[in-house]
Amino acid sequence: MSTKVQEPVITSIDDLQTSEARWLALKRIQYVDQTGKSRTWEVATRKTRGKAGVDAVAMGNVLRHPSRPPATLIVIQYRPPLDAYTVEWPAGLIDADETAEQAAVREFKEETGYDCRVTSVSPPQAADPGMSNANMQLVMVDVDLAEDDSVAPEQRLEDGEHIERVIVPLSQFYDRLVEYAARDRYVVAAKLFHFAAGMQFAQTNKLT
Amino acid sequence: MSTKVQEPVITSIDDLQTSEARWLALKRIQYVDQTGKSRTWEVATRKTRGKAGVDAVAMGNVLRHPSRPPATLIVIQYRPPLDAYTVEWPAGLIDADETAEQAAVREFKEETGYDCRVTSVSPPQAADPGMSNANMQLVMVDVDLAEDDSVAPEQRLEDGEHIERVIVPLSQFYDRLVEYAARDRYVVAAKLFHFAAGMQFAQTNKLT
Repeated sequence: MSTKVQEPVITSIDDLQTSEARWLALKRIQYVDQTGKSRTWEVATRKTRGKAGVDAVAMGNVLRHPSRPPATLIVIQYRPPLDAYTVEWPAGLIDADETAEQAAVREFKEETGYDCRVTSVSPPQAADPGMSNANMQLVMVDVDLAEDDSVAPEQRLEDGEHIERVIVPLSQFYDRLVEYAARDRYVVAAKLFHFAAGMQFAQTNKLT
Repeated sequence: MSTKVQEPVITSIDDLQTSEARWLALKRIQYVDQTGKSRTWEVATRKTRGKAGVDAVAMGNVLRHPSRPPATLIVIQYRPPLDAYTVEWPAGLIDADETAEQAAVREFKEETGYDCRVTSVSPPQAADPGMSNANMQLVMVDVDLAEDDSVAPEQRLEDGEHIERVIVPLSQFYDRLVEYAARDRYVVAAKLFHFAAGMQFAQTNKLT
């Protein structure tokens, strides 16, 4: 975990034109709908999508320790778009020449310091389909911990990344996210919250 | 379900400047990070956020029938940003003077035709925290079906909305989403997929 010298603070927010943006763009889509009528839709897009055709991966992870219950590692970082600390699973953009699986192993190592084994890769999912074309794949990974895991492995963060790691037993996953969401200046990412809410739902409802 | 006269088709996609957009905007954020360094971040935002401070709601719903297992209603619609049919839970933007709970009941009735009872409201969640400030709340609702539910209630769709309703038993939820994701021109929304994947995970893994 990096040393937090001070709280991040936003100094200005200005309109940004698509022609001046480096990472994002707005597009106007003209389309003909099911009834034959011409319509328009506004969409936000990333300028960085590579050959995989998918923007990003998130790593749903299970930490398996020889003598403790299974846990998951969540990451907390300041996100300027929300001016808040977000609680998420480790995630990252897929590089231009990478597969989702390769990006998952690389990003997981960088953000958390841990090596992982991929156990499943989801189909591409739409991050926010009414607003953007951003998409991602959920890559489930296992991490095998040693009996003595008292020293966390070193992160390999990029310049400007400050990512706190928190290990949460799976049995407390949903409750801990609800606690984080109630804290001042903390927001839980929707995908993470939905996964934990789905777990909680399955454990507390009759499904058949 | 509306009659599908033809497949939607995109006729043009053009760069859109923030100054010309009606619904979305790009912003450039200048901030000082934890180490005191000045940095910039690009973000996509909605221009429509109201007093609730939250953009949207999604309705995680359980259809309760007197003599059949519990099910959920998913909606399928053409989404221009992805040029695909997306599989989602009913969702919508919160109007300027609404609470999340009010928006949930209203939007659920409009998109599905069914009346619902709210059973829980989540904290605000960040839809895609690296790219946008868009946020939403997951509102869980119950729908009480009559023994004879052979006639689905009428939707109240807005001009241009064509929303197909599909009822899926909860026991088949995850598998059905995986099937949809494999179809040509179909994409499952990430929040919905994560909830179902969380359910599946809880049912197939040891959690303690």
